[in-house]
Amino acid sequence: MRFKFSILALLLEVIVIVLYGIFVDYDIDIPVTLLYPHFQDVHVMIFVGFGFLMTFLKKYGFSSVGFNMLIAAFGLQWGILMQGFWHMEEGKIHVSIESMINADFSTATALISFGALLGKTSPIQMLILTLLEITMFACNEHLVTEIFEATDVGASMTIHAFGAYFGLAAAFVLYRPGLTNKHENDESTYHSDMFAMIGTLFLWLFWPSFNSAIAHGSEAQARAIINTYYSLAACTIVTFALSSLVDKRGKFSMVLIQNATLAGGVAVGTCADLAIHPFSAMFIGVVAGVVSVLGFQFLTPVMASKLRIQDTCGVHNLHGLPGILGGIAGIIAAAVKRDLR
Amino acid sequence: MRFKFSILALLLEVIVIVLYGIFVDYDIDIPVTLLYPHFQDVHVMIFVGFGFLMTFLKKYGFSSVGFNMLIAAFGLQWGILMQGFWHMEEGKIHVSIESMINADFSTATALISFGALLGKTSPIQMLILTLLEITMFACNEHLVTEIFEATDVGASMTIHAFGAYFGLAAAFVLYRPGLTNKHENDESTYHSDMFAMIGTLFLWLFWPSFNSAIAHGSEAQARAIINTYYSLAACTIVTFALSSLVDKRGKFSMVLIQNATLAGGVAVGTCADLAIHPFSAMFIGVVAGVVSVLGFQFLTPVMASKLRIQDTCGVHNLHGLPGILGGIAGIIAAAVKRDLR
Amino acid sequence: MRFKFSILALLLEVIVIVLYGIFVDYDIDIPVTLLYPHFQDVHVMIFVGFGFLMTFLKKYGFSSVGFNMLIAAFGLQWGILMQGFWHMEEGKIHVSIESMINADFSTATALISFGALLGKTSPIQMLILTLLEITMFACNEHLVTEIFEATDVGASMTIHAFGAYFGLAAAFVLYRPGLTNKHENDESTYHSDMFAMIGTLFLWLFWPSFNSAIAHGSEAQARAIINTYYSLAACTIVTFALSSLVDKRGKFSMVLIQNATLAGGVAVGTCADLAIHPFSAMFIGVVAGVVSVLGFQFLTPVMASKLRIQDTCGVHNLHGLPGILGGIAGIIAAAVKRDLR
Repeated sequence: MRFKFSILALLLEVIVIVLYGIFVDYDIDIPVTLLYPHFQDVHVMIFVGFGFLMTFLKKYGFSSVGFNMLIAAFGLQWGILMQGFWHMEEGKIHVSIESMINADFSTATALISFGALLGKTSPIQMLILTLLEITMFACNEHLVTEIFEATDVGASMTIHAFGAYFGLAAAFVLYRPGLTNKHENDESTYHSDMFAMIGTLFLWLFWPSFNSAIAHGSEAQARAIINTYYSLAACTIVTFALSSLVDKRGKFSMVLIQNATLAGGVAVGTCADLAIHPFSAMFIGVVAGVVSVLGFQFLTPVMASKLRIQDTCGVHNLHGLPGILGGIAGIIAAAVKRDLR
Repeated sequence: MRFKFSILALLLEVIVIVLYGIFVDYDIDIPVTLLYPHFQDVHVMIFVGFGFLMTFLKKYGFSSVGFNMLIAAFGLQWGILMQGFWHMEEGKIHVSIESMINADFSTATALISFGALLGKTSPIQMLILTLLEITMFACNEHLVTEIFEATDVGASMTIHAFGAYFGLAAAFVLYRPGLTNKHENDESTYHSDMFAMIGTLFLWLFWPSFNSAIAHGSEAQARAIINTYYSLAACTIVTFALSSLVDKRGKFSMVLIQNATLAGGVAVGTCADLAIHPFSAMFIGVVAGVVSVLGFQFLTPVMASKLRIQDTCGVHNLHGLPGILGGIAGIIAAAVKRDLR
Repeated sequence: MRFKFSILALLLEVIVIVLYGIFVDYDIDIPVTLLYPHFQDVHVMIFVGFGFLMTFLKKYGFSSVGFNMLIAAFGLQWGILMQGFWHMEEGKIHVSIESMINADFSTATALISFGALLGKTSPIQMLILTLLEITMFACNEHLVTEIFEATDVGASMTIHAFGAYFGLAAAFVLYRPGLTNKHENDESTYHSDMFAMIGTLFLWLFWPSFNSAIAHGSEAQARAIINTYYSLAACTIVTFALSSLVDKRGKFSMVLIQNATLAGGVAVGTCADLAIHPFSAMFIGVVAGVVSVLGFQFLTPVMASKLRIQDTCGVHNLHGLPGILGGIAGIIAAAVKRDLR
């Protein structure tokens, strides 16, 4: 185990550097200052947001922040290659701030899957899974955006639903009955819940940057920011309301506040750049909050006991269901828009 | 209790969505990229800064971060409506990055008041208080900036002093003698003090963005950034010096470092965009640090015992007194400027 | 002790304000919006990044975050004066966002030195050390960039190596045999390691801003961002691989993940803005990771036992050796560039 991981990691890094030597160079067409703040917001989401969100389980604090950093650092190098191979110019992949944002996006799929697998996988398995998932993601993304010409600016389907169901499939394969008894590892403590709130808040705050980073034109970008901002705000109010409602003593549940408040950002993703008006964005956020809270409360226990899918962080409720909801919202928004012409 | 909060929150969200459906739409005149980094800095202050600053009490960690998120998520939706009603065009409120910054500002008043009330109020009370306070804030702000045509770029008076005294008034009304005996809840622990430093630092770092976000023109914006930066730096040195001086063993007090270091940002707010020169900004910071440390050390205990006002987080010393000081500094700066003509 | 620190701090602040009154005024030539996001990234690194990185020792959590804030708040005021005296126009030092970035840079040297001295110095010693070190740094920086006309955009040598060896020299002078027995203070705990990861991640994420902030032109800035991003990513993979390799049970070491993952940012600093191609940046990151891990594992214990230099946070391995490596990489890059002409 000790040597296997080290050799695999070093080998992968050597392969990546050789491929970069052959294929990758700077792209300096786009002025750096415009997209750089957006990039940094997304970058903080990937490393601080996802990293700390998963720290709520008291036994997996180091695993979540540490492995998150390992997966993300490898994923962003691999993502540029996999996405770049579809867009080569004269045999070269050109790296710009925009392609760095896209590489961070590709990394998000692996981190979402990791959320379902936390506590079940070794670092070796996670490195291989990251490599496979990002490769598949890049092919799927190419298919959706280039061949089908579908619009998915905030990537509800291509990142969130994809990452969630990839992770759930892996969780099903890696299912071991002994895990269900490890109740003590699945608990949170006061301080682990506080650390997780750091992750939640940075994801919540910068989600408008995530959904608007690759929008075309400043008008679409502004709409994506505003729609995501309102979807998240409405989703948060509904999450607090339902969290108190489903608890027997009327108390707020930290796991719901940490996770379901973010579902509005996922669900509004696909149609974030369209002129759906703020109130529709809020409505999408409300539905996402309802779906996510009900998922955590009723679906996750059933999936673990009946379907043998143990979803450690509940990514199905945060990324899976809201991602599908986002796809449906996108179809409706596109249909309504066509009708209005 | 359990159903009351849920029903109230859902009802408020429905009302907000209906009002947004009728009145709110996108404003896309201003290019998004210019103010967006400023907006995100202010956004981080509201959710991470205020949220974690209040975590220093060991028993109220979840309350402070969680309720802070609830209040802010509702406040930013309500703020747009209350501020927007004074500036409607053809019956519509137009949402832009700038109005989102203003909505975050309006939310700050409620969060400051919450700092005085932490541990005394239920979520229902806080939602109603937020609704009332933001409504009053929007009217007061309109009165000050539109009718009196007063300048208050960093809102020392309209946000900080307003929020502090609103909260203190509510704390007076909600006073119960039993609270004074709950000493064990008013203590901090090692880790709760570390979490609070996350809040302090993000407030400290992004305060220049807060004070410059709505300054007119890039020259005034640059001055507001520079003045706030120096006022905070000078205030911090004085806070450390006095913190050691007022302690019997010469030790630094975490509560002073967490709070009084920020008073410089409040006090320089009103005149931040004026050409007062960096050394005056530093002088304002020094006075703010002195006032704030003395307030925490001598005034807060007296207010709790004699006036029956329990100021849980000491917002009077961080926002109240420095806010008034900011108003006085603004008057002096305006007077001197007139003399120099 | 109690009065000494307070009097020294207040006296220094008075001197600074008087000097600012005489010499410092606004510079408003450069539009604020362009560099301001870069400035805020660097600002977060100085206060949150350095502050929390040093919290991993359970007994020094408050010292590290608190003293870090004190040193930085004084250093940024002093840095403007020391750096500005070399560039006065008509007897005035003009403060702009760019000079504020440079002042934050000068502060970094003192914070790096503080990492070697944590637990050994009093606040009075640290204030005096900060004053002396920043003064020396400004002279050295002037010598290197103006007289020698050397290029060091990310300041591998002038900040990182300078700060590390200054701190190690002070650690040697302040060596007391009793310190080596205080093993219990040199331990980390679960939560202190989590707090330190906050520092690590914000340093890691914003290092591209650090290395590109003062690059000339948007093309050089884009290259500095991209090179730093890849150097850090490659360094991180190597650090994880070697961390598992050097541990007897194959486990990851938190101290290595917290520190050695950042060595890539230091080492690529000097040549970050040059067109060295992404694969060379990754190679520099790999070498930096190897050097830093070996330093922590083998050199630091030897330095403490044989050379009587106790490097509390291991700044020699994070800033010293990678800084020298950055200088060597810069010489090679400059030589190769000349050959290619």
